[in-house]
Formats: sequence, structure tokens, C-alpha cells
Amino acid sequence: MKKKIAVIPGDGIGPEVMKQTLRILRFLEEKFRHEFEVEECLAGGVAIDKEGVPLPDHTLKTCKDADAILLGAVGGPKWDHLEGTDRPERALLTIRKELGFFANLRPATLFPAMKDACPLKPSLIEKGLDLMVVRELTGGIYFGEQKTITEKNGKKSAYDTMFYHEDEIRRIVKIAFEIASKRKRKLLSVDKANVLESSRLWRKTIIQEAKNYPDICLEHMYIDNAAMQLIRDPNQFDVMVTGNMFGDILSDEASMITGSIGLLPSASLDADQKGMYEPIHGSAPDIAGQNKANPLAMILSAAMMFKNSFDLTREADIIESAVEKVLDEGYRTADIYSENTVMLTTEEMGQQVLDTM
Amino acid sequence: MKKKIAVIPGDGIGPEVMKQTLRILRFLEEKFRHEFEVEECLAGGVAIDKEGVPLPDHTLKTCKDADAILLGAVGGPKWDHLEGTDRPERALLTIRKELGFFANLRPATLFPAMKDACPLKPSLIEKGLDLMVVRELTGGIYFGEQKTITEKNGKKSAYDTMFYHEDEIRRIVKIAFEIASKRKRKLLSVDKANVLESSRLWRKTIIQEAKNYPDICLEHMYIDNAAMQLIRDPNQFDVMVTGNMFGDILSDEASMITGSIGLLPSASLDADQKGMYEPIHGSAPDIAGQNKANPLAMILSAAMMFKNSFDLTREADIIESAVEKVLDEGYRTADIYSENTVMLTTEEMGQQVLDTM
Ligand SMILES: CC(C)[C@H](C(=O)O)[C@@H](O)C(=O)O
Ligand SMILES: CC(C)[C@H](C(=O)O)[C@@H](O)C(=O)O
Repeated sequence: MKKKIAVIPGDGIGPEVMKQTLRILRFLEEKFRHEFEVEECLAGGVAIDKEGVPLPDHTLKTCKDADAILLGAVGGPKWDHLEGTDRPERALLTIRKELGFFANLRPATLFPAMKDACPLKPSLIEKGLDLMVVRELTGGIYFGEQKTITEKNGKKSAYDTMFYHEDEIRRIVKIAFEIASKRKRKLLSVDKANVLESSRLWRKTIIQEAKNYPDICLEHMYIDNAAMQLIRDPNQFDVMVTGNMFGDILSDEASMITGSIGLLPSASLDADQKGMYEPIHGSAPDIAGQNKANPLAMILSAAMMFKNSFDLTREADIIESAVEKVLDEGYRTADIYSENTVMLTTEEMGQQVLDTM
Repeated sequence: MKKKIAVIPGDGIGPEVMKQTLRILRFLEEKFRHEFEVEECLAGGVAIDKEGVPLPDHTLKTCKDADAILLGAVGGPKWDHLEGTDRPERALLTIRKELGFFANLRPATLFPAMKDACPLKPSLIEKGLDLMVVRELTGGIYFGEQKTITEKNGKKSAYDTMFYHEDEIRRIVKIAFEIASKRKRKLLSVDKANVLESSRLWRKTIIQEAKNYPDICLEHMYIDNAAMQLIRDPNQFDVMVTGNMFGDILSDEASMITGSIGLLPSASLDADQKGMYEPIHGSAPDIAGQNKANPLAMILSAAMMFKNSFDLTREADIIESAVEKVLDEGYRTADIYSENTVMLTTEEMGQQVLDTM
């Protein structure tokens, strides 16, 4: 199979974890005689430094031309003084919007070997933990009209608009129903319909759409309650779908509950299987360049790419099994190190996964 | 001391828990020769049933004339089919707005006797847990312009507006700084300034205001990160301040982390010590009228009223110590019952607190 992959190492630990991921990519390319045309490009803080903008035009063009995008991480304290559209994060938001990556899939999985890292009581996760948060990614308050108003007396006010069109809601909830139908046939829709008009439209639309999925059990929950219930008993959920802002909060909370945050990948997809794949952890500038970072979330993001964008399930499975095996065997990077495990550097961890594959 | 108290028992278990609270009020009234003029009124589902609206005019008037308001709980499945302004919750939102209760104080405390109910690992709460979430309550996306638009082809879209004026931000963050100065002199402001214009104004305003509180250490965190950090290590925080929507989510999450959700009170205050006091738990319609409900959160809400609205610290302390003692002695209602404790009914629990006082 021949594929074009845009690779954005980004800031902080991004380049290091990407390097290990590319080794694995090359290995699978050779083994299964694929042809991966990898084009590295700049985005985030490093692009601000070198080209003055978080997302240079040629990076956007490379992303548009590619079949899939791998992204390390963007941002860091160096660029924290910048405002609004000048910030590194803008690169992410622009790629999402420009490429129509409206469906953000965030699996929150507890790796058996990582049980002890879970912040919840053992009794709450006896059965493990395996949630999928589906977040709308190109609408809502992230992309509605926003403005700061200065009065004559110098006083300021500001607003943001949470806007949803029913078609935007429909296409994301369809994806969630499809995912639910391949899992436990249970879907939780999270909103704030007791207060927000856009949430009421969200709820009406998903209830309509549910008629096309009669075998899926759809439930609804307010975001404040969902934020509590996730902690009280995460296993009551399976697939959750929600808007951009609530999804930002809920998916991070769900990840933290697993305690495996250094290990979790994510996918941001358009309607045609094209997507951007990135670890959910940040750029961790404090350990950047020290060969300490954990490459597993980035490596698992590549596995998501194989599965979701290239339909290469075998390749994805090989990666995922290797990662699980490496963890089971007690290999750890510093961030997830605990007593009686073996500490590896970023490179050694990459090598360990390769060897296991 | 002579005080007018508007009492809104509301729906579900509201009336039962209010009844026990009023017994305690009467006891303290007699003991310390106060004069509490209690006026009961209707709001929520029960008001919809009897008067056709969630907040009858005379209820609003009674609230306006009172020195403080005690509220049980509103809402329930019976009224779930209602929309928007017809819903029981509207009573809450209207009282908040009409009476200018812009400051919502939500203590999240772990009662020592309740440690086992905490969903977090014991190692995370060894030192206990004592957070205060300060939520802006009369602005933001709860009260901005909202609308549903129907296109010619019948398709709908909808929006809500998250609006903040710097004066609204200033008055709530002042309250948070004041509270922090009486605690650990640490304040965390939670926003989404990397995306939202209103959050950027929020951040600028609190940074300006911080100049008046040079002895308070102010930090900032994005809401998604805060939702994670609360689970990873809640004791890194002390006082948190945030807008209406983020506060709704964060305060519920913080409460759940204590595991003592049946025990937590809340206060919603204006600029002159007047306030509405209510438990954070809901109306629990499934156990309503069965003499099973836990009255302690309502009773502790009355304690908050004594302290915050009447400056009766002694009376508040008496209530709080009695509740703590009752818990220490192993008395429980069904919701917090565990092995080796004594199960009491709602009435027995009220009596137990009275006896202990
Ligand atoms: C960096 C930020 C703009 C982004 C978001 O809020 O979407 C991040 O938190 C995420 O979830 O990918
Ligand atoms: C009932 C609802 C409107 C309300 C809110 O969102 O403010 C509740 O969740 C609360 O926190 O008091």
C-alpha cells in the first residue's frame, strides 16, 4: 500500500517520540512492502520561531495533500506570552478546521500492567476500564464568533458563541452510533440541555438520529453530572459523545481516570477516513531533549492511523500487542516508572517495541 | 437577632430534609433568643403543578424581602418533558439572577469519618481534602443571548453566548481573593484562555486585581487540565475561582472526589451578605417520601447561612461540630451507610444532630 504521511514533530518532546514512531513505521513498511512517503513539516512553537507563524502555508498544504497526519505535540512556556491566533495551539485548531477533522476519538483505556497508576480505588476498576469519548471538533464555542468590546470609559467585555447547526451534530453523532454498534451498543450523549439552547438542539438531533440505530441504547446526561459519574463509577459508560468544549473537558478527565495518560493516543477524522493522529499528552518541555519521554502514546497513535485511515488492521494490531507486551514485561519510561519495573530511555523503549514486534 | 428566612422545600426529598433543618433552626432560635420569621414558599416542580410556573411571583417577592433563603432541591423526572423556561430549574436560575447571587461558594470537604466513601486511592487523600470552589453564578453562557434559528428548508441551528464584562469578573474574583486570604493564600483561576476571548478577559482582569492582594499566590489553569489535576492530586489546590459553566462542572467534580456528596452544602451570595443556601445533591425522587434521605447537607447549608448571612459563627459552629460528631459516632443514613455503622432514618438523623447539639 502506498500512502503519503505528513509528519509534524512539533515542540518539546514531540520530535523525540516521533523519531521512535517513524522507526516503527519504517519497520512495518519494509515487512509488509508498503510505501510510506513521509513528509516532515513545521507547526507550533518551532514554526513561530523559524517562520513567524504557528502554521506555515506549506505545512497546511502538505497536510492537505497527505493521506494522514502524525503530530507530536505543540506549545510550551516559551510561547505562553503570545495571544490568540499567534499561539502554537492555533496550528492544531486551524488544521482541524481547514481539513474538516470534525470527529475526535479519544479512547480511555486502562492498560492491565498500569493498574497501580490509576488514581481511583482498585474496587472501582476491578473489571478494567475501556471508554471511548467521541468529541465534536470543528464547531461549538471553539469556532463561533468571538469578540472583545471596549467601552468609551475603557472598560472591556468579551464574548464567545457556542453555535451548532443540526447537520454538524448529525454527522458526529452518526460516527458515535457506528462506534457504539461495534462495542457494547450503549451510547451516552452529554450536554447541558437544561440551560443551553445549542444543547437542546443537540439532544433533539441525536434523538432523531437514534431512530436509525434501533439496537443502540441511547442515554443522556448533563455535563456536570457526567463529570461526577465518571469518577464515581466509570464502568457505567462505554461510548460517550459530546460537543467540542464539553468533549475537551470530559476526554481529559476520562484519560486521567485511567492513570495511563502517557499512553493514550487520539484520532481526529474527516468524513473520508483521513485523519490527524496525536498523543493526548502535551509537549512536556521540562523533560524535552533528555531522552526520557514516553514514546508509547505516539506509537499507539500510529496504530490508530493504520486502523482508521489505512484499514491496515493487522499492522495496528501488531503495534498494539507489542506495546501491551512491553508493558506487561515491566518496561517503563520515567513517567510511568514504579518499583520493580525496568526504566528505559525514549530510544530504548522504541527499540523494545521494535524488538517485540 | 431578628431575621426573615424564605424557605423553599421544593421537590423530591427537599421537604423531608428541610423539615429536619427547621427543627434545628427552632432549637437555636430558642437557645440563643433569636427570632426567625420563616416563610415557606413554592418553587420548582411543585410550583409548576400547583401554580403553573416554576417560580410564582409571590415566591420571588418573599425571597426578595427575606434576609436569607433556604432551598431543598428542585426538579425530577415528572417535569423532564418540559422545555427551557418552563422547567423546574428555571426557578433556581431566576432567583440567582433576580437577587444578584453572583457568588457561588462550594466547599468540597472530606469528612474524616467518610474517608472510605472517597472514590480516590487512599494515598491521594491521606492529608484529607478541603477545597473551596468559587463559581461566578449570574453571568457567562448561562445568561448570554441564546436562540434557535430555523432555515427555510426546516433545518435548525442554535447558539448560546458566553459573555463577561470585566466588572462581573472583578467582583467574583475579589470574593475569591478574600476567601483565599483567610485560608492558604493560594488561588487558582480556571479558564480556557487558549481558545476563548471571554477567558482571556477573565485572565487579564484577575491578573490586574491580584495587585490588590500581593500576599496571595495566584495561578492559572485551563479547564481541561484542571478537570484532570483534580483527580490526579486534589490537594495541590485550595481555593479555585472560575466562570459559571466551568464552575458548574468543576464544583460537581470536586464534590464527587470527596465521596461525601450527600453531605455538602452550598451558598449563593450577593454583595451584601444576603444569600441562598442549598445542599448540592439533587431532589432524589426515587427515595422521596420514604424517610430515607440524608438531611445533613441541608443542615450544613443552614450552618453556612448562619455564618455568611447572619454572622452567627457560634451557631454555625455548633451545627457543624454536631454533624461531625454524629458521623464520627457512626450514625448514617442509607446513602452513606457502610458496614459497622448505624443506619438512621431522615427523622432519626435530624434528632441525632439535635441531641448532640
Ligand atoms: C490545545 C487546545 C487548544 C486543545 C483543545 O482545547 O482542543 C487541547 O486541549 C486538545 O484537547 O486537543
Ligand atoms: C440545575 C442546573 C440549572 C444548575 C446549574 O447548572 O447551575 C445546577 O447544576 C447547579 O449547579 O446548581
